[in-house]
Amino acid sequence: MERIYINELKSHLNQPVYVQGFVENLRDSKTMAFIVLKDITNKVQITIDKESQKELFKIFKNLTPDSIISINGIVYKSEYVKLNGLEIIPENIHVESIAAPLPIQREDIPATKKKPGVQKSGIDDRLNYRWIDLRTERNQLLFKIQTEITNSMREFLISRNFIEIHTPKLIGTASESGADVFPVKYFDREAYLAQSPQFYKQMAMASGFERIFEVGPVFRAEKSYTNKHTTEFTGFDIEISYINSYKDIMKIEEEMIIFMLKNIKDKFGNMIKEHFGLDVVIPNSPFPVITLKELYKNLENEFGYIADKSEKLDLTTEAERLSYKWVQKHYNHEFLFITDYPAEKRAFYHMRNREQIPLGYDLIWKGVEITTGAQREHRYEYLKDQAAEKGLVEDVKFYLEFFKYGCPPHGGFGIGLDRLTMLLLGLSISEAMFLFRNPKRLTP
Amino acid sequence: MERIYINELKSHLNQPVYVQGFVENLRDSKTMAFIVLKDITNKVQITIDKESQKELFKIFKNLTPDSIISINGIVYKSEYVKLNGLEIIPENIHVESIAAPLPIQREDIPATKKKPGVQKSGIDDRLNYRWIDLRTERNQLLFKIQTEITNSMREFLISRNFIEIHTPKLIGTASESGADVFPVKYFDREAYLAQSPQFYKQMAMASGFERIFEVGPVFRAEKSYTNKHTTEFTGFDIEISYINSYKDIMKIEEEMIIFMLKNIKDKFGNMIKEHFGLDVVIPNSPFPVITLKELYKNLENEFGYIADKSEKLDLTTEAERLSYKWVQKHYNHEFLFITDYPAEKRAFYHMRNREQIPLGYDLIWKGVEITTGAQREHRYEYLKDQAAEKGLVEDVKFYLEFFKYGCPPHGGFGIGLDRLTMLLLGLSISEAMFLFRNPKRLTP
Repeated sequence: MERIYINELKSHLNQPVYVQGFVENLRDSKTMAFIVLKDITNKVQITIDKESQKELFKIFKNLTPDSIISINGIVYKSEYVKLNGLEIIPENIHVESIAAPLPIQREDIPATKKKPGVQKSGIDDRLNYRWIDLRTERNQLLFKIQTEITNSMREFLISRNFIEIHTPKLIGTASESGADVFPVKYFDREAYLAQSPQFYKQMAMASGFERIFEVGPVFRAEKSYTNKHTTEFTGFDIEISYINSYKDIMKIEEEMIIFMLKNIKDKFGNMIKEHFGLDVVIPNSPFPVITLKELYKNLENEFGYIADKSEKLDLTTEAERLSYKWVQKHYNHEFLFITDYPAEKRAFYHMRNREQIPLGYDLIWKGVEITTGAQREHRYEYLKDQAAEKGLVEDVKFYLEFFKYGCPPHGGFGIGLDRLTMLLLGLSISEAMFLFRNPKRLTP
Repeated sequence: MERIYINELKSHLNQPVYVQGFVENLRDSKTMAFIVLKDITNKVQITIDKESQKELFKIFKNLTPDSIISINGIVYKSEYVKLNGLEIIPENIHVESIAAPLPIQREDIPATKKKPGVQKSGIDDRLNYRWIDLRTERNQLLFKIQTEITNSMREFLISRNFIEIHTPKLIGTASESGADVFPVKYFDREAYLAQSPQFYKQMAMASGFERIFEVGPVFRAEKSYTNKHTTEFTGFDIEISYINSYKDIMKIEEEMIIFMLKNIKDKFGNMIKEHFGLDVVIPNSPFPVITLKELYKNLENEFGYIADKSEKLDLTTEAERLSYKWVQKHYNHEFLFITDYPAEKRAFYHMRNREQIPLGYDLIWKGVEITTGAQREHRYEYLKDQAAEKGLVEDVKFYLEFFKYGCPPHGGFGIGLDRLTMLLLGLSISEAMFLFRNPKRLTP
C-alpha cells in the first residue's frame, strides 16, 4: 500500500491508510494506549485497544520516543481526540527503528500537578545533537521556509535572464586581504578557501555573461563568537553588467527582497506567526536611503549616540542597532540602505566617484547588515591603483588580468542566506543554519 | 535611454535604440566601417559612413576586438547585411573599456585567398584565459544550458516537497575512507573538506526531513588527469526517507532526468544541434537494468571483452565504454542502470541483502558513470559492523551517532552536474565547467 502524508488523512476518512513517521509521544492509560505519530506534514493519534489488540500493545510496550514506525490502519473522525480530531485504529505496526533514550531535551515541558517541569537543553547540547533538535515542527518549518527563500530569489533572477554559475572554492592565492582565509593542503602546495565568489563573479562579467548569480558556501577564518557570525555560511551572490550606477543594484536587490518576502508571507505567514511569534512585513518601495555621515548625525541628535571619530568611518554595532530604531520611527520601515562609506573602509574593487567616495552601500535589515553592494571598478588602471593603495599586489594579480582585455561596467551584491533566515524568524545564527560552524565547533 | 538586447532589435525597426556589448569584429572598407557588436543574446552590425560620420570613424579607429562599447542609433532592415538582415546607424558610440591584444585565439579562422588560416589556441592556454574563451556564443550557450539543467532538476524536486539544505564543507574528521581528502588549517587544529554531503544528507533523514536535496561543491583530492575527473565539482545530491527499496531511488532519478532532458530539448534542442552537433534524446522509461555480472557476460559474448577476475568486481573504464555500445544495440538507449556490485567495492553505508549484495546501483550515460545510488543501512548495529569491516572506526563515530536515536529507512543518490553537462554536449570536463581544477591547476 502506498504511504500517505498525515496531512492527507482527512480525505481518507473510514478508509485503510498507510502512514510512517516518528513516535512523538506514548501514553499508556487503563484500557487504551496512544501513540502520537509525526511525519514532515503533521501529527496524528494512533489508538490501541489493549484488550482486543494484545499483539499491537506488545509492540507498543517496546516503543520509545523518536522510534520510527509504519502503520496500516483505518482513519476515523473522533470528537474525543484533541489532535486534529482524527485517530487511526491500527491493524499493523511495523517497527523500522528503535531510538535509544534521547540525550537532549528539545522543548520545555511545563510542570503539571503530578510532575515537575523539564527545561529544554542548552544551545550547545542541542547543537551537539542537532539532528534530534531538528525533529521539531518549528525547526522543520524553518528549513521549509529557507527552501522558499532561496527558491523565490532564484526564480526572480532566472525569470530575468540570470545565468547560474558555480565558481571554485579552492583558489590559488589568498584573495582580498589575505587575512581571515583558511589554507588548504593541495597536493604539494598550498591553496585557500574562497572568502566569497567576488573575483569569479566579476570574471563572469569579463566573460560577457552579463547577469549571474551563485548560491554556495563562503568561508571566513574569523575568530568571532557573536550570535551572527559563523566560519562557513551560504552566500547568495549576484553580479550585473551594463549598469549605470550602484543605484541600479540597490533597486534590483530591493525588488528581489520584496518578491521573496511576498512569497514567504503567502505561504508561511501564519505559521511564522504561530511558531516564531513574528509578522512578515512586506516593505514599501523604495527602501529608505541615508549616507553614513547623515545617519551618525541623526543618531546623535535623536538618541544622543556619539561614536568616536575613528569609529564613524564604519558602522558600529551600536549604530547598526540604533539605525533600526531610527528607520522605524521615521519611515516605519525594517530596511535601510546606507551609502557613502569612506574608501578606507571599503574593498579596493569598489568604484569611486571624483571625491573618492565608493559607489556602494550596505543594506541593514532589522538593525543587522545583510548585504554589501557596489558598482565595481572595471577600468584596469584605476583598479590597479586602488589595489596598490591597499597594499595588494601579488595576491590580486590574477584578478587584475580579468580587466585587461575588455570588461563591461558592472556591479553586484552578496547576501547571506543564513542571516536572512535568522532575521526573518528572530533567531541566532547558530539556530538558523542546518549545521553551525565557529572556531570551536566542527561537529557534528 | 534604456538598453535593449540585440535580439529585441527586430521589434524596434526605424526607431532609436541603445545597445551595449563586446566588439566582435571590426572591418574598415573604402567608404564604410563596420562593427559587429555582440551581447548575451545575439550580434548586430553597426555601419559607419566614413565621410559623413567622421567623429564616429575616429572612435572606430581606436577600437580593438573585445572592447566594450555603448551605442545610440537607429536600427534598420537591410538586405545587404548578412548578419540577421539588420544594421544600426550609430549616432553616438561610447567606449566603456578598451581591450589589449587578445592573448589567445578562441576559434579557428579558416584560410582565405589573402590570408592563411589561424588555429584555435590549445586547451591549456584557453583555460589560462578562461574568461576570454567564455565569450563565444557556444560557451555562453553552455552555461545557459547548465542553468536550465540545474533549475529543471530543482523544480522537479521542489514540486515534490523536497527541502533544500546546505551542509558544511568544513568537517572535523576525514570521512568515508580518509584517502583523497584535502586537509584544512582550521585555527589551531586540522579540518577536512567534504568529499560529498553523504553523511549530512543522511543526518537530514535522521532529522525527519524526509526528502532533501543539495547543490554544492564536492572536493576530491585525487591525482587523476583524465578528461572526466576534477578536484572540485558541483554535486547534485538527493536523499529520500521511507523508501521500500533502492528501486524507488532509481525510479525517481529516472523521472528527474527525463523531466530535465525534456526541458532542455524544448528550450535548447536546436541550438545544441547547431553548436555542439548533438541530438538531445529523450530516453524511454524504464531505463534498462542489468547486474554487473550479467553485463560482463554479455560484453564477453558480444564483443569478446574479458576483464581480469579482480577487475570484474567493479566496472572497468573499457567495460563502461562498451556498456554504451551494448545498451544502444539491445535497447536503443543511452542510459543503463547497473546493479549488484560486490560489497567489497561499495561504501560501507550501502544496505545489503541477505547474500551481502549491496542494494544499490550505478547509472551510466553514454558510457560514463554519472551516479551512484543506494538504499542506506539505517540500522545502527548493522551499520557499525559494516563500517568496522572496512576498517572505519574513529572517523565515522560521529556519523554512526545519527542512527542511534531513531532513523527512517532511506536512500539516495548523487549526480555530478559538470559530468551531466559534459555528456549532454559532448565535451571534456575541463570545458564543461566555469573554472576547471585539477592537481596542477588552481588558476585563474
